Parts: sequence; structure tokens; C-alpha cells
Amino acid sequence: MSLLVVGSVAFDDITTPRGRAPRVLGGSGTYFGLAASFFTQVRLVGVVGEDFTDADEAIFKKRGIDTRGLERAKGKCFFWAGEYESDPNVRHTTKTELNVFEHFSPKLPAEYMDSEYLFLGNIAPTLQCQVRDQLGPRVKLVGGDTMNFWITGMPAEVRRFLSRLHILTINDSEAHLLTGEHNLHRAARAIIAMGPATVVIKRGEHGATLYGTSDYFGVPGYPLEDVFDPTGAGDCFAGGMLGYLAQQNRWDDAALRRAVVYGSVMGSFACERFGVDRLTEITSADVDARYREFIALTRFDA
Amino acid sequence: MSLLVVGSVAFDDITTPRGRAPRVLGGSGTYFGLAASFFTQVRLVGVVGEDFTDADEAIFKKRGIDTRGLERAKGKCFFWAGEYESDPNVRHTTKTELNVFEHFSPKLPAEYMDSEYLFLGNIAPTLQCQVRDQLGPRVKLVGGDTMNFWITGMPAEVRRFLSRLHILTINDSEAHLLTGEHNLHRAARAIIAMGPATVVIKRGEHGATLYGTSDYFGVPGYPLEDVFDPTGAGDCFAGGMLGYLAQQNRWDDAALRRAVVYGSVMGSFACERFGVDRLTEITSADVDARYREFIALTRFDA
Repeated sequence: MSLLVVGSVAFDDITTPRGRAPRVLGGSGTYFGLAASFFTQVRLVGVVGEDFTDADEAIFKKRGIDTRGLERAKGKCFFWAGEYESDPNVRHTTKTELNVFEHFSPKLPAEYMDSEYLFLGNIAPTLQCQVRDQLGPRVKLVGGDTMNFWITGMPAEVRRFLSRLHILTINDSEAHLLTGEHNLHRAARAIIAMGPATVVIKRGEHGATLYGTSDYFGVPGYPLEDVFDPTGAGDCFAGGMLGYLAQQNRWDDAALRRAVVYGSVMGSFACERFGVDRLTEITSADVDARYREFIALTRFDA
Repeated sequence: MSLLVVGSVAFDDITTPRGRAPRVLGGSGTYFGLAASFFTQVRLVGVVGEDFTDADEAIFKKRGIDTRGLERAKGKCFFWAGEYESDPNVRHTTKTELNVFEHFSPKLPAEYMDSEYLFLGNIAPTLQCQVRDQLGPRVKLVGGDTMNFWITGMPAEVRRFLSRLHILTINDSEAHLLTGEHNLHRAARAIIAMGPATVVIKRGEHGATLYGTSDYFGVPGYPLEDVFDPTGAGDCFAGGMLGYLAQQNRWDDAALRRAVVYGSVMGSFACERFGVDRLTEITSADVDARYREFIALTRFDA
């Protein structure tokens, strides 16, 4: 099944204890799309500036991603600069330039209107709802992500966004912020009461947990001894998860559990190189091998 | 197989957002012993003061714990007072009185000398080594725990303690402190290089991870929507783990994995009431039922 994603396509300036990547392709739409492309046909909606080159677009094309929904605007791409401490969970944003994103108003190409799977990547909740509104009742499953900036700055819009979602993927700290609950299990229940039937809490190196109306499932983090660059890991998690569900065209408990593991697989690859580098070199065989590793590292006898 | 534990037997004054328990039985030896008693015969080594009553001792007796190694000294029991924030990972110690522990020099009863399994609970590393030294080559497996206070205050003694261990259970923050490594996987490898062949990192609500010379295993935390009182959860984890290994009398990879799950089971029970209350009311059937819950919450299809 085709999976439509709206999100940012950006350039990032990333500094980690391992070095600096002064200008690499990034953004929530980019990471999500590349990760999801290992599972299903991806349609990308976003906006880029005049500094987005054919070489940049080739990264999407090579993974078979449909970029007809990628609008070209005057100006420069969204730009983000940040620095990670030796604890990769601590990062400081040093610069954010909205650029072409400032006046972005997503418009879906006619060819995208039959999309049955949708992911509303981490951008303004107003834009996320705008995309949701354009797709009619044909949409079967809607996933989404948000972050502290929107939770604090546009709480009413975030609530409207949540009321229209089936699956929310969210960081542990953002789940606290959204609900006021320190206990993540209670936070997840509180989010389910806001709309989404399924909530996945991303715990960084500690793994992820899935909460459904009846189901609970936990998976530990992949043992990465060297977190080279965590940028985009959460978006890749969502891409692996939604990509797998779209491929399978089902979202029962068993499929959701496997999807969370595929999400963990894609998130772990994202951390192994700067930017999208690792995602452009792995193959489906690598994805399957890491899925089998997750089986091995979580199994115990009854 | 008999499992000997040395640790503190104390009174705690615990304040959590759920209320206050002004004087409850606690200590690393107490929590470890009660948890391990669900699996094997436990022999307790420690010291108590004149304020330790028959009613307190009955808590151990009821679980079949051998208290012949519990020395009676003039003075009062070790006393600890602490307060947890609404985030149960954040706690503040408001009072520590060593009392009878100040001049404690563990002496093992003759009847304990044939113990084959040993756990060196979280007390001064000098005392831990003293117990290890008294037991001869009959000991098959030695586990232990330590904390920031000893890591910072007695680093050389902690290194000697580590060099004599087979299994270390340790908190994530203490693993950082001990090794200087932010990455827990690297921290575990660094600890293995210091002596123990197996390291279990306790991640609180995020679960636990097992590192062996060849194996890696992760288990998520049990979904406790209400962490009533986390005091002793780490000691109960170790008690469940070592108790199970002593019961099975083996510590191959498969047994170690199951032991980590039984540790998680016992740690989760500990958090459900103040002090040791929950541990004194559960049965082996409850332990088995929660183990099966862990299977259900971690399984996914290949």
C-alpha cells in the first residue's frame, strides 16, 4: 500500500563528540521516507528551497520515493544546527531557520489522493491537520509525531491533531510534557484518551513501548556501542513502523508488535553514521538480519 | 542450593508522593533475602540492634530464611530516611545513621561454610570482601551489588570486590560513574574487563540488560502504572536473579536470561507497596503468573 508522509526536508549542521557534519540532508520527512522505503511505496509531501539540488533529490529517487509532492519555493531549505553532548540524549539547538517552511501550505498532488496510509511527520500541527483534511475517507490508518515546541506553543492545535490520529509515536520526555504524567504507562493511557488508539513511546537507548487499548509490548534498545549521530532516529523509527504496517496492510496486535521491532531496527541504523548516510548504504537483507538480531536479544524460555 | 547473602538489615523512613512510612523494615539484605526466598534456601548474614524485635524476625522466619548469621549488637539498627519526588527515579536521602553497622565485622556461622552460592549485597566493599574471604573454594557463584557512595569513596576496594565477582548487578547511573562511559553497552564491557563475567544493568522503569562475555539480552520494565515505593527494588531484582540461579544450580546463557526476568518480576512486586509489605503477601503462584506476563509482553513473531 502507498504511504504518504508530510514532513520537513532540511539541511542540518550536526556536531557530535565524533565530529561535525556541517551541511547534510535531514528533516522528519526525509528520515521517515528513507526508512519507510525499505517496506513500501512512499509519497513525500514537503517544501524545499533553491539550494536543494538534483544530487539531493537523487537520494530519494534511489530509494524509489515519489517526490511529486515536494514543492519548490524561492529561498532556502529549512535549516537546523545542533550539538550533542557525550550523553547523546542531551542536545542543544544552536540555530533554526524556517526559510521556505515559514509560508508552507501543503497541497497534495492529484496522484496522491488515493493514499490509504498517512504519516504526519513532526511539523506544525496546523500543517499536519491541513494534510489530513485534504485526504478523504479513503485513508485507512493515520500515524503522527509531535514535539515539545508544538506541545507548549500550540496546545489546542496539538489536541486537534491527536483527535484525528490512529497511532502516535512520541518521545518519553514529550509524553510527560503532553500529559503532565511522570509515569509513562499512565501518560500513554492519557494520550489514548485524547484520540489515538495506539501510542508508541520512544525511550531512546532504552527501547520502545507500545500501548493499545488492550495490548502492551516492550522492546529493549539495540546495543549500539557507538551512537555516532542520533539525529532522525525517531523519524526512522516511525518510518520503519508505518512502512511495515502499510506493506502488510494490517494493524492487529501481532502486526503492531512486529512493526515496533522494525521501527527499532530502522532507528538503530540511523544512529550509525552522520545524517542519512547509513540509510543510503544498507539493504533489505541488512534490515532483515537486524530484525533477527532483535529476536535473539529478547528471547527467553518459558 | 543454599544461597548466602550479606547485606544490611535496617529501618527506613520513606516518603513518597503516595504518603509516608515512618519506620519500616528494610536494607539490602532484607530485600534480597525475601525475594530470593521464593526460589531457594536463604542464609542471611548481617547485624541488627536492640530495636530489632521478634516481630521483625518473624518476617524472615515466615519465608523460611535462616537468620543464624544475624548478629545482635548493642545499639540501634542501621537507619535510613529518604524522600522520592513524583519522578520515582529522583530520591533525596535526608538521614543516614550507621548505628550497629559502624563496627560490624561479619563472621559466618560454621553451618554456613558449605554455601555454594553467595551474594554480596550493597554494603562497604571491605565487608563484602571479608565475607568472600571467609568462604573457601566451595563457592560456585558469587554475585554482588555496589553504589555511588562506595564507588566514589573507596574506589580501590570496589575494584578488589569486582575482581572477585562472577555477576555484578548495578544501576545505570552507577555503571556510568564506575567506568566514565555514558554508553551503557561500553560501560558493561568495561566492567567485564574488571572481573565479573556477567553484568546486569538495572535501568529502573526501562527494564534491565544482561551482558556476558558472548551474550546480550534485554527485558523491558514491567508496566507499573503506580510505583508506590521503589525502595529495595534493585535488591529484590538481585534476589530474584540469584535465587533462581541457585535453585536451578546452573548459570548458562539460557538460565541467566530467565534469571534476569525473575529478577524483574521480584523488583516489580517490591514497588507495589511500602517497604517489604508486598513481598510478605505474594505467593509463588503470583511470581509464576508475573513471569508469564513478561513472556506475553515481550513476544513478537519471527
